[in-house]
Amino acid sequence: GEIVPPLQVWDATQNGTVECGHTLTSFNIGKNPAVAFDSGLAFGLNTRQQQAWMNYGGGLELIRALFKKDGIFPIPCGNVGVQMGGFYRKEINSVDDLKGLKFRIGGLGGVILAKLGVVPLQIPTADIYPSLERGAIDAAEWIGPYDDEKLGLHKVARYYYYPGWWEGSAQVTLLVNLQHWEALPESYRVALEAACAEATVLMMAKYDTRNPEALRRLVAAGVQLRQFPRPVLDACYKAAFETYDELAAKNPDFKLIYESWQKFLADSNLWFRIAENTLDNYRFAMSAQPR
Amino acid sequence: GEIVPPLQVWDATQNGTVECGHTLTSFNIGKNPAVAFDSGLAFGLNTRQQQAWMNYGGGLELIRALFKKDGIFPIPCGNVGVQMGGFYRKEINSVDDLKGLKFRIGGLGGVILAKLGVVPLQIPTADIYPSLERGAIDAAEWIGPYDDEKLGLHKVARYYYYPGWWEGSAQVTLLVNLQHWEALPESYRVALEAACAEATVLMMAKYDTRNPEALRRLVAAGVQLRQFPRPVLDACYKAAFETYDELAAKNPDFKLIYESWQKFLADSNLWFRIAENTLDNYRFAMSAQPR
Repeated sequence: GEIVPPLQVWDATQNGTVECGHTLTSFNIGKNPAVAFDSGLAFGLNTRQQQAWMNYGGGLELIRALFKKDGIFPIPCGNVGVQMGGFYRKEINSVDDLKGLKFRIGGLGGVILAKLGVVPLQIPTADIYPSLERGAIDAAEWIGPYDDEKLGLHKVARYYYYPGWWEGSAQVTLLVNLQHWEALPESYRVALEAACAEATVLMMAKYDTRNPEALRRLVAAGVQLRQFPRPVLDACYKAAFETYDELAAKNPDFKLIYESWQKFLADSNLWFRIAENTLDNYRFAMSAQPR
Repeated sequence: GEIVPPLQVWDATQNGTVECGHTLTSFNIGKNPAVAFDSGLAFGLNTRQQQAWMNYGGGLELIRALFKKDGIFPIPCGNVGVQMGGFYRKEINSVDDLKGLKFRIGGLGGVILAKLGVVPLQIPTADIYPSLERGAIDAAEWIGPYDDEKLGLHKVARYYYYPGWWEGSAQVTLLVNLQHWEALPESYRVALEAACAEATVLMMAKYDTRNPEALRRLVAAGVQLRQFPRPVLDACYKAAFETYDELAAKNPDFKLIYESWQKFLADSNLWFRIAENTLDNYRFAMSAQPR
């Protein structure tokens, strides 16, 4: 945020104010909702699935072709995984409880929730705490325990919901001005891509280490952890894919990437639930029991 | 395998025959069972958890101190995730079915299974197919669908079990001769570590893309997919942690790393089951239904 604010990283890279910038590209769905596939979609690919689709499933080629229209060369550079569902001043027990809920959320997640009566609000970071404290908003999502704790929202909203279904994972991206990218010697390009891959491993590893510690402190401070009820998830799931179908019907860029993404998601989910998910579920359940 | 066979990568790196080698270090548990923490343990950390423990949970420091005794500097360089449980000539319906089972498996997984009456056999790759075909062994595990399909084991054993609980993930490692590592200029070290991180992202992404396609072909070829029954998993889980406790009691290296690993595993599992696993379970279940 020293040169330009987070929401202007795209424009600054496009017009050459900076050679490159690091951002969550879904901030830019106002320009074209198809950019959301770069960051991650509601009920979409998790971190490993996103990396697989990007690198070997054709995802990165599609994303690069899309961003090229704005003179930008994107390189995946970090991920925060599945996030939390945010802090709420009152419990969410039914789909009805979403109606009229003033909720700080950005991106396609807000568009999806609006279908269910939520009033999604994009509020600058610094204003989230005071807005929630004085009741100008009813709830706010940010990231995960490690970042959320710093904002202090648990002091003004008691209920902490999970999972943050609006992103199966949230990939962060290095946007490089295309002219500058093309001017780079090959060895510099290779080095930059390797450095971004290293940042991807390290960012996810850091969140995966810091989030448990922060969650423990939040619960110790009196936060009430709640899982979104199944009927709420079902309504959101339905609204999410309705939103995608609508976007695909009117936006050829979205349609093109959605077709690749949807096929990959189905195949990948089928595989992931076999070895990976079966062992995870067993290990997590056993881990909760005394040995 | 062009310079030395896979099982000799450790020795060749240690004695300077090669400057560095790429291997699954658990091949070397005969030297010291504590090296297993580098590759991954039964019912242990999954891929993301392993990367978190390594980079921010103190794991890599402990592993590097251990390997330093043999003059080796290890750098994580790839992972294959949770594997399949192998091909079996007959079904495994109970713990009793494990008794006397001649099973091709290496590493600590074999030690654990021996507690339950399995006869673990380390067989060179080229001999697995003929041994299974003529009934010299009853079952064989290898890696995941992508690699398993190439061995063709499905042609001589009908039942394909999951999950491969003997490694929560299998990390592959670049072993660098310590003297050569210390002689490298700082910029070369940084470049090598970044390249290994990139290989980590790309290897996992490639397996996550190729495994679903291969599994689909295997099932089309008549393979019977089976999940290990819960009582079998329970007996294996118990035997695994008994094995770790025994190793810790007699091996100070194992004990030191086990304490860090066990604490990290518990905290990490507690966190992972909240946002990540809840969303994965919901997505995977919904993905199996028609929309």
